[in-house]
Amino acid sequence: MTTKHYRVPPKLVGYYLKKNGQPKTIREIGSLCGDVERRLLKKRRSRQKLFRMHIGNPSVDTPRPLINYQCMAINSPGITNSYAPCDGDPTLKKEASNFLSKFCDVYIPPKYCISSAGGAHGLYLVMKAWHDVLQVNNDTRDTMLLFAPYFPVHKMQADDVNFKTESIEFYDYRGEEKLRDELERLLSKGNIHSILYSNPNNPAWLSLTKEELAVIGELADKYNVLVIEDLAYFGMDFRYDYSRPGEAPYQPTVAKHCKNYAIVLSSSKFISYPGERCGIVAISPSIGIDSNAELSPAIYDHIAFKGMALTISSVPHSSQVGMAMFLRDLNNGKINFREALMEYRDKAKKIKNLFIEKGFYLTYADDCGEPIADGFYFTISRIGFSSEQLFLELTYYGIFVVPLNLCGSKRDGVRICISFVNPDDIPELENSLKLFDLDHTNE
Amino acid sequence: MTTKHYRVPPKLVGYYLKKNGQPKTIREIGSLCGDVERRLLKKRRSRQKLFRMHIGNPSVDTPRPLINYQCMAINSPGITNSYAPCDGDPTLKKEASNFLSKFCDVYIPPKYCISSAGGAHGLYLVMKAWHDVLQVNNDTRDTMLLFAPYFPVHKMQADDVNFKTESIEFYDYRGEEKLRDELERLLSKGNIHSILYSNPNNPAWLSLTKEELAVIGELADKYNVLVIEDLAYFGMDFRYDYSRPGEAPYQPTVAKHCKNYAIVLSSSKFISYPGERCGIVAISPSIGIDSNAELSPAIYDHIAFKGMALTISSVPHSSQVGMAMFLRDLNNGKINFREALMEYRDKAKKIKNLFIEKGFYLTYADDCGEPIADGFYFTISRIGFSSEQLFLELTYYGIFVVPLNLCGSKRDGVRICISFVNPDDIPELENSLKLFDLDHTNE
Repeated sequence: MTTKHYRVPPKLVGYYLKKNGQPKTIREIGSLCGDVERRLLKKRRSRQKLFRMHIGNPSVDTPRPLINYQCMAINSPGITNSYAPCDGDPTLKKEASNFLSKFCDVYIPPKYCISSAGGAHGLYLVMKAWHDVLQVNNDTRDTMLLFAPYFPVHKMQADDVNFKTESIEFYDYRGEEKLRDELERLLSKGNIHSILYSNPNNPAWLSLTKEELAVIGELADKYNVLVIEDLAYFGMDFRYDYSRPGEAPYQPTVAKHCKNYAIVLSSSKFISYPGERCGIVAISPSIGIDSNAELSPAIYDHIAFKGMALTISSVPHSSQVGMAMFLRDLNNGKINFREALMEYRDKAKKIKNLFIEKGFYLTYADDCGEPIADGFYFTISRIGFSSEQLFLELTYYGIFVVPLNLCGSKRDGVRICISFVNPDDIPELENSLKLFDLDHTNE
Repeated sequence: MTTKHYRVPPKLVGYYLKKNGQPKTIREIGSLCGDVERRLLKKRRSRQKLFRMHIGNPSVDTPRPLINYQCMAINSPGITNSYAPCDGDPTLKKEASNFLSKFCDVYIPPKYCISSAGGAHGLYLVMKAWHDVLQVNNDTRDTMLLFAPYFPVHKMQADDVNFKTESIEFYDYRGEEKLRDELERLLSKGNIHSILYSNPNNPAWLSLTKEELAVIGELADKYNVLVIEDLAYFGMDFRYDYSRPGEAPYQPTVAKHCKNYAIVLSSSKFISYPGERCGIVAISPSIGIDSNAELSPAIYDHIAFKGMALTISSVPHSSQVGMAMFLRDLNNGKINFREALMEYRDKAKKIKNLFIEKGFYLTYADDCGEPIADGFYFTISRIGFSSEQLFLELTYYGIFVVPLNLCGSKRDGVRICISFVNPDDIPELENSLKLFDLDHTNE
């Protein structure tokens, strides 16, 4: 096998960068990858192997029972031919509430578990609601705090709802003490109305410790700040088994530690269900700012009535009913969601090692001293490379990733997503990385 | 049977109006109806018959083949466990383009037929895209023109994307000549960047004539205004048969008459598929303002990349694949979508007559002299009643409707939706209306 196979002509990449500009979003990186692939196919008349490590699309199958439940729902009267209730299918609301009890050890009443068309939709609705509720309450704070590196869509959504944003390089403030000091400093300024993060974190796969979550919760209540917790990767810190209903350890969440929170639960990764767009926004029943401690009903109304009507009228119906039945099985311990996901852990371990063996290092390596979990994403750096240089240089070896400058990171590096790497292709990936290493060690 | 059965105590309605305020949206009318129903059930221990004529939920079943196609899709690999492409499933794009050729006699390339999570989502994405594209092009126009009476969500969406709005009482400007004069007057002011209407119109079920559409199209191109045409009730002007592929008459559309248009197609009514959230935004391939006649690519990018990522990441996958296969059957003439819908026409005719016999009259009665079609909605008035009074007074007879002041109408009246009236209940409805008439003729 000739090594040429692994190379993508820099001129070709350059052509598309010149034509379309430097990619500014993950989707634009996807477009670049598609353009390059089509061009190579045309030129070489054989499919060039490209490693699509920029996408966070799951590779695990949707659990069979969930598929069967959705099919049952589609065949039931009153599902496909009627809008779901604007706050969600009642059974899903009940089972979601139950799920949060069983797997997070947190009680949120079914009313406040609102269906959304996936995690992004849930986040968007919460932000829009919080924006309007602050305005109605004459609260002049205008800024959302992000923990960098962050998921770029978080920032884009904040911009869209007219939130200003600030971010902290979270890795520089790990642990109870440092985090408390930095948050005190920032929140006491008086301009911040909310904190948004994902846990485990996209892109770096950092997991907040319970102590850190406790500090965030404590200060959120002290400063009347809403914590928006994106649980897009529920239960996927595989160092711990969070998958046994009603048994510790529970998925850590800020909801254990404060009153001012909204949790956004996605079905895309933990039950491999991104296609059908079904998630849950669970808001605290006792959100308050200053004197006004009863904001939860207004936020609920805004999400279920206004936000839903504005954006999509109602959440897809059959997927809600299917997911309700599936959550019931999880809640009863009839099905375990974690087992099918272990292939992510195993792939991450292998691929991480490949990069490290070939002269890369982990950009974000540990959680307060403990090595980060192996999961869906990790971040890598290489001495002498900026984020954009590393992104660009890797494309020449057929590897597409996300440069960390798109994620507001202070560090140079790129995000790697392991889901789309076929285990059979790992030797090829190794070859590409070897070439990269050779080329850049000789320099 | 005692007539009491048909009455709802005014005190009870008053209690909820005092508690929650006058309903400001259709959903709040639904909440009022639900509250009243629950209260009556508790009090009388028997289900009170309420006529839910405020909702636009279809009553016709989803066509069996569509359900089967969606089930097939769910069981196919790579559907439920992967995000659909951000601009839509390729087969749906192709079939949607084909559908518009066959049923509207308009060619829009598949690329520009973008999937949305239903009609409301499609409208929202178009408005957001148009807002940003105008801004990028330093176009300072800030106002959208609505044809009143309009669907309240249209206005809410326009407000949300920071469009100012103006409206014309469309019924006062029917016909080529009057409409041209009024539009010339308004568009020549220079502040209007877009026109939004639904056709047939929600709430009044007015249908624009071809001549009127031609005027709108002509002036839109003249004044660089984008026409956003909401085809939520595709093919449902039942006076004509628009259901034969490739044969006249075709569903009238402004797309036949101009370059600056976006069509939003909903699957909720014409194929009774609201539960699964699947629609199409079809944008003209040659949208332009002034010197810049190439805005379509930017609008496409904004909808498929930015707007989609902001709101829901991607459109539900299995419903797209199912709808693609179903549209193919429609396009090939294998299935006819109109036959199943004729029950709406028949119900509308009966219910309209009931109201008229009992002393009501049609608020909006004709299309340029021709009686309006019987379809999903109609509007009724009663001498001496404002919109809000009529809304309130009808609730005492168990009839819930939408007051036309919520739709920006200059006329007093209410919107009636016939879909949720069971044909078996029509005699009861007649009784309620008889009571209403007796009570209000004696006064």
